[in-house]
Amino acid sequence: MMIGQGFDAHRFATPGTGRPLWLAGLLWPVPEDADPLQASYYEGIEGDSDGDVAAHALIDALLAAAGLGDIGSLFGVGAEAHGAGMHGADMLKETTAYLTANGYKPVSASVAIVGNRPKIGTRRTQAETVLSAAVGCRVSLTATTTDHMGFTGSGEGIAAIANALVIRQ
Amino acid sequence: MMIGQGFDAHRFATPGTGRPLWLAGLLWPVPEDADPLQASYYEGIEGDSDGDVAAHALIDALLAAAGLGDIGSLFGVGAEAHGAGMHGADMLKETTAYLTANGYKPVSASVAIVGNRPKIGTRRTQAETVLSAAVGCRVSLTATTTDHMGFTGSGEGIAAIANALVIRQ
Amino acid sequence: MMIGQGFDAHRFATPGTGRPLWLAGLLWPVPEDADPLQASYYEGIEGDSDGDVAAHALIDALLAAAGLGDIGSLFGVGAEAHGAGMHGADMLKETTAYLTANGYKPVSASVAIVGNRPKIGTRRTQAETVLSAAVGCRVSLTATTTDHMGFTGSGEGIAAIANALVIRQ
Ligand SMILES: [Zn+2]
Ligand SMILES: [Zn+2]
Ligand SMILES: [Zn+2]
Repeated sequence: MMIGQGFDAHRFATPGTGRPLWLAGLLWPVPEDADPLQASYYEGIEGDSDGDVAAHALIDALLAAAGLGDIGSLFGVGAEAHGAGMHGADMLKETTAYLTANGYKPVSASVAIVGNRPKIGTRRTQAETVLSAAVGCRVSLTATTTDHMGFTGSGEGIAAIANALVIRQ
Repeated sequence: MMIGQGFDAHRFATPGTGRPLWLAGLLWPVPEDADPLQASYYEGIEGDSDGDVAAHALIDALLAAAGLGDIGSLFGVGAEAHGAGMHGADMLKETTAYLTANGYKPVSASVAIVGNRPKIGTRRTQAETVLSAAVGCRVSLTATTTDHMGFTGSGEGIAAIANALVIRQ
Repeated sequence: MMIGQGFDAHRFATPGTGRPLWLAGLLWPVPEDADPLQASYYEGIEGDSDGDVAAHALIDALLAAAGLGDIGSLFGVGAEAHGAGMHGADMLKETTAYLTANGYKPVSASVAIVGNRPKIGTRRTQAETVLSAAVGCRVSLTATTTDHMGFTGSGEGIAAIANALVIRQ
């Protein structure tokens, strides 16, 4: 059994750009009860792909556990990269396929999201279902804030820390 | 065997409020050699419970490893929460009981505290004993600073990163 | 099988001090194509030892997994410490020898570096080879940035998060 550690952080998009918010394999729509004057603050996460820090941290944890590089070596970096525009769940599926092709199988993974929004609680089970299906083993999701401290507490950005166990098939 | 990742961060209380400092299952008194003019800086950690970031990060790691949600789903959030006012060691005991009731058993866990104070070194073994007894398996504790960088380095707050392994009973 | 979590962060040295940059067991020379006017920004990392945050986070993860304290208890703290001036790979070798002497064997470890520089990608395999040889099991390395956020994003410092699995021999 082998272990991997992953981390990722991205900036929230500038208010008013209308970027959709993808996180933990899900699209998070602007809440229906959002103050219309505040709706521009429900921005998505920047990134060459969809900015899904939870998926990206999991990908690094899975690749590290298998000794197969990291997200940059598998998907490339920048707007021209293979992973450009891809959603987190699809990147996770491709990561698992890459592990399988190299004789590795994920057996357990977990990711902790650190940020002010969106509120994960009500959709955690849904996100875990999507992430688990993409990876092919149970993926757990937790979420916390940093009490208004640091770049995750100011709302500037969002981060995720992940770990994973894989075995040789 | 299944793996979980946990993270938590809280703010130190405002100097002068006299909040006791609970961390890693222990009460940390103001040092006897503390400068009386500085004693107001030996404040506890804010939080609806006792603010024990090490215990909270461990709880998320354990719940994630077992696929049983996170600290918010088990103990609630806010001043009315079930976990309000609880100490970290008691929350850990309740977490382990919840895992046991669902057929899971913690086999190993570890937490890294990130912050300027208190100095963990002299009481690490004592803290590990308390945390291990609460979880029912060996829990290791490490501690580091961030060289005066970020919110943990300025003394504004304290963070903890944890991982855990559980098995099905 | 037992798990450990490690974390470390250090400040980049003041530009102009000419401190060599050691990270993940490797010396990172100033790039040959560095702008001479910018070369003073290719500074090393501060620390009593060589400041290798990746090695230090791995050491804490390994010691935590074995329940054998942390880097401070094994190598000491400050300029007079046993670890003062030591390189990360040598500290990792000593850590593994300490685990072996206590009946533990590392089976897998992983470290995620968080910072703007150096660019890990081109030398990741080389670093993994050095770290794996030092620890005596496969050590994986990933690297990411924080999109110019926080102390790792401003270039003030660099951090690393590690995990490890050990068994009793
Ligand atoms: Zn990313
Ligand atoms: Zn907490
Ligand atoms: Zn260090």
